[in-house]
Parts: sequence; structure tokens; C-alpha cells
Amino acid sequence: MAKEKEKEKEKDVTIYDLANELNISVATVSRALKNDPVVSKKTRKKIFELAEKRGYRTNPFARNLRSGETKTIAFMVHELNSTFINSVLSGVEKIVTEAGYDLIIAHSSESFAKEAANAKNLFDKRVDGVIASLSFDTKNLDHFKPFFDRNVPVVFFDRVEKGKGNTVVVIDNYKCGYEATQHLIEQGCKRIAHITASLSRNVYSDRYRGYKDALYDNNIEPDESLVFIGDLSEETGADAAKKFLNMSERPDGAFITNDFVAASFIKKIKEAGLRVPEDVAVVGFNNDAIGHLIEPTLTTVNYPGIEMGEVAGRTLINHLKGVSDLSKINTIIINSELIIRESSVRKK
Amino acid sequence: MAKEKEKEKEKDVTIYDLANELNISVATVSRALKNDPVVSKKTRKKIFELAEKRGYRTNPFARNLRSGETKTIAFMVHELNSTFINSVLSGVEKIVTEAGYDLIIAHSSESFAKEAANAKNLFDKRVDGVIASLSFDTKNLDHFKPFFDRNVPVVFFDRVEKGKGNTVVVIDNYKCGYEATQHLIEQGCKRIAHITASLSRNVYSDRYRGYKDALYDNNIEPDESLVFIGDLSEETGADAAKKFLNMSERPDGAFITNDFVAASFIKKIKEAGLRVPEDVAVVGFNNDAIGHLIEPTLTTVNYPGIEMGEVAGRTLINHLKGVSDLSKINTIIINSELIIRESSVRKK
Repeated sequence: MAKEKEKEKEKDVTIYDLANELNISVATVSRALKNDPVVSKKTRKKIFELAEKRGYRTNPFARNLRSGETKTIAFMVHELNSTFINSVLSGVEKIVTEAGYDLIIAHSSESFAKEAANAKNLFDKRVDGVIASLSFDTKNLDHFKPFFDRNVPVVFFDRVEKGKGNTVVVIDNYKCGYEATQHLIEQGCKRIAHITASLSRNVYSDRYRGYKDALYDNNIEPDESLVFIGDLSEETGADAAKKFLNMSERPDGAFITNDFVAASFIKKIKEAGLRVPEDVAVVGFNNDAIGHLIEPTLTTVNYPGIEMGEVAGRTLINHLKGVSDLSKINTIIINSELIIRESSVRKK
Repeated sequence: MAKEKEKEKEKDVTIYDLANELNISVATVSRALKNDPVVSKKTRKKIFELAEKRGYRTNPFARNLRSGETKTIAFMVHELNSTFINSVLSGVEKIVTEAGYDLIIAHSSESFAKEAANAKNLFDKRVDGVIASLSFDTKNLDHFKPFFDRNVPVVFFDRVEKGKGNTVVVIDNYKCGYEATQHLIEQGCKRIAHITASLSRNVYSDRYRGYKDALYDNNIEPDESLVFIGDLSEETGADAAKKFLNMSERPDGAFITNDFVAASFIKKIKEAGLRVPEDVAVVGFNNDAIGHLIEPTLTTVNYPGIEMGEVAGRTLINHLKGVSDLSKINTIIINSELIIRESSVRKK
């Protein structure tokens, strides 16, 4: 098998083969394949036809040795099996593909160590640029330093480290957290739970600050026992529901930073015989499709993954093309909004 | 900016620079960087330290020119914004990354023309192997011929063209369709609707054959007016519900080849005042998380995307390693099973 493959490799058609077969100079073949008008249309046609017939391919590595470009962009994420990351990927892919770049993806499974190893591998692979979202426990950006040192552009999205002169594409998580909580207060909620993930990550700490500030501004004392930190799995929603149902003084509202977790939470609350929103009003986050398919339909924060991906992709590509300069862009904030549905609106 | 980048590129550290700075021969540096024990441990350590300090990177292109390998695998799919494709990708990524390969992804947005263009681009990029799932309207595999001709291994999954000597990883869609329909018949359904996508694609035509054969085997005459073909969007479910609700003789069961479509269908059926499963029993497909979060919980076919991705990835990698030979593998069938929940079980 290996031998057979070797034989095939040896048979790779070169421009020398084409030149030889057509009895034309190698320089002419090379020019023709670049569609240089110096070569007559007729000759170019002849060369193209033979190239196709013989299965000639340009040698991207030889080309790359000259240009120094690999025409690849790295997409580094914490998790692939996520609706949100998926929609970002879909937006990024659209933009970079249109610009003629390929996408290499690497995911860290929420591990800082794996993220650092991925960064090293992609640096060695000489990607032309990086689009990245950090893992739960990434504390600094030292592992991105080789890219920074070599002026390989990096755009961070969603989960980022701010204020270090790097470019980030985010939503205003503080504002989202504030508005979601304010909305629950306006619906009459007095004890509002918060179900979220690691507060060492910007997206969750910002939403948490928004949640707390909305409480303060409405003269409600934040209660740490109402904050539940999980890993955003469905179990997180079920476990949080279980904890809160067992409290002597139960929460009457919940701001949950993920729609699937919210759906799982609501399911358990209803199974326990409580009503949503009458007994517990709920706001989710992400505007996943699940939100309008469950009962009651879910109030949520619209968090446009595809747009975020498109903006991150376009920002990187424009830098690579020299149209704009990443070093001048610190933060790009994507619009987000509260979508009010049944799960939070109390009939008064 | 561009100029600055150019300058950086010129400063790329070579093994000559390292040899020069340490006053050691280039051959010794080269050997040391490959961790060759011929070079003393002390010298290797010295060279490694300087290499790291100076930001030395191996030149993958130079290496690739010799080995002929790019250490990249192409992942070609019809859609990225899909829970199922997402879970397959996650399985593939795990396996190929462990084996030291990178993944380049390309998606066709369900267009045959774009799929063909992607194939050409990836062939020119000289990927070492391909994992692919075909678009709705792909009719043949001519666009994969360049890979076949050059012995670049291709593994197809899920949406495939069968019986052409190519390797496919699938579930037994016929059996799944048969069992889902048989189950609805056993629950007392007499008029069973089928909501699905383009019957020119194997997965849907196979499920449809299973559906029809189950009806025949139970002496129920298939009724073409009960078959609804859509694009598997949420609208498909809503539109199908609307159509069936307007029929004088309504269906009393529905086998739907996608859980999100099923959730959307159930929502509309309930909004019209009918009960699921009492008036219309429903079976979905995919075992998406949504299935156990809606009411009633959804009977579905467990269709393990991650496993399918892992098997496709492992099959390809084993071929590349010479451990197994793709040309001897025609079809790999992944286990699948009917998961019975509330949406189909009628209280008798």
C-alpha cells in the first residue's frame, strides 16, 4: 500500500513534463499557467488543456516558499460541539473562503494546556492569521506571544482577555446582564437566581457584574446563595433547579447564561409542579432555536454568532489585505438585544 | 504595515543563524533539532534553548517538499450550522488531531457547484485525505475523481453515493425508517405522514423506502399526499403541520427525519388544539438535545454523530498509516436505535 502511494507521488506532473510534451519552453508554460497575456491565447489554451488532461497541480509549497504565505487561517476554540461556536464558525468560514483562505480548526476542550499546545502547532504551521476564543481557565495570553512577536494577526472573539492591545470582537455582556436582570425586576421578581459558568472568563464575569449592578440599582441585596456556577451542560440546569427547589426561600426569577441550560432548568421546575413564569420567571441567553420551541417560549438575549464570525473574519482579512490595521482596533462590539417571550412575562 | 510585515518575514530565524551564533556546524544543529542522540544532551539542550529564544520554527513547506505530505485532512460538508454535522466534526477533529493532522473545512451550502469547486481547491492544496458528506443535489462523484486517480483516500459519511467502490460510513437508514414507522403502526396509527428532505439523497430515500415497506407489510396503502418534502428548516415543520391540519382526512401519526423539524411540527399541532400523541403520534430523527426538553418529550432515532465522526476519522487515519486499506472497505454501518419517549406512546 505504502509503496503504491509512493509510486503515485513520483508520477506528479511538473511544468517540465508539460513543456517537454508540447515542445515549448518551461518559461512559456509557467507564464501560460499564470494566464500571462504575453503567451498567445492559442498556446495558453493548449497548455491548459494538457495540464488538465495530465492532472497537473500547482505546487502550493513551492509557491509558499516564495510568498511566505500559507493562505490558511487558524480557528481556535474551546469547544466545537456548541450551537454558538458552530454559528460563529459558519460566519468565519464564509468570509475567509471568499477571500481565498482555508480554515484550520483546533479546539481545546476547555483546557488551557491544550490551547497552548494548539497555538504552538499552528504557529509552526505558519498560519497567516488566527481567530480565537479562549477556554474556561485561560488566564493570560503568553501562548499567543509568538504570533504577536511575528506580527501574525490575531482576532479574539467572545471569550477574550481585554485591554492588552489585542483586538477583540464581543457583545456588551455587562449591558446584557444588566438588562436581563432589570427586566426580571420589572416583572416583580425579588429573589433572582443567576446560573452561569466560570467567573474567571470575561463573558460570565461581565454578565455577573451587570446582574449585580441591576440588583443594587433596584435596592435588592445580592445573595451569593442564589448564584450557581456550572459548566453550561444540561446537567447544570437540572442541578441548579434541584438546589433552588430545596431552598426554604426559593428564587422567583432566574437569569441563565445559556438557552439549553435554561430549557433544562425550566423542565425541572415544571416537573416539580411550579409554574414558569408565575412562580419562577426565566431569562436565557444566546437565542438558540430551542427557545421558541419549548413551553413557555424562552425570553433570551439575541447573541448573533454568525454576525460575530463574519465580523471577526472580515477584520482579519482586511488586515491581511492591508485595507485596515488591527493594531488600531481594540474592541468591536456587536449588537445584542433582549428578546422577550413567555417565560419571563408575568400576567399582572 | 505591509512593509513592516515584510521586514519581519526577512528576519525568520534559520538553522544557519543558530549554527552561526553557537559556532557549531549546521549539520549538528539540524540533527539536534530532530533530537538525534548522536548530538550530546548538553549540546542539544543549548541548541533547543537558543532556538526557543530566537523564535526558530521548522519550515513545514521545506519539509513537505521532501515528504510529499501536507499533514492536513479535508472535511467537506453541506452545512456547518447543523447540530449533527457539528457533532461529526467534533468526532473527526478528535481523531485526526491525535494523529497529528490538521483539519481544513469547506462547506457547500447544499450546492453541488460549490462542492465541486471546494473539491478542486482541496485537491490543489494537496490534502492527504478527505472526509465528505454530499450536498442535497450531488448526483455523481466525478468531482472526486482527481482524488481517486491520485490515490488520495476519501471517506464519505452520512450522505453518500453507494456502490461505486468508495468507502462510506453510514447508519442503516432503511432499517431506521422501517422501525420508526412500525412503531407508529403498533401505537395504532393508520394514516402516517412522512416529513423529510430531497429523496434524491440516500439518507432520505432509504428512510422513505423503510417507511413505505413498513406500511406495505402492515397492509396500509402508502398515500403520496401524506409525504411532505422540505429543506429540514423549522419552517418545514410548521408548513407541513399547516398542510396536514387542512386535510379533510388528517394523519394520525408522523415520522419526521429531523428532531428540530419535529419540534416545530409538534408546536403547531398543539397550537391548533390537537394532542400529541393522542391525536397525532410523532417520531423524530437524530436524538438532538431538544428532544427531551420539549413537551411531550420526543421519540427519535439515535444517530450518533460523534461516533460517526470518530469512525470516519479513524478509518482514514488507519489507511494513511498503512494499518488498513480503504480499497477493501466498502461500507461501515454505525449502530442506531429507536428511543421511545412520550410523543409516540398512546395510552390505550
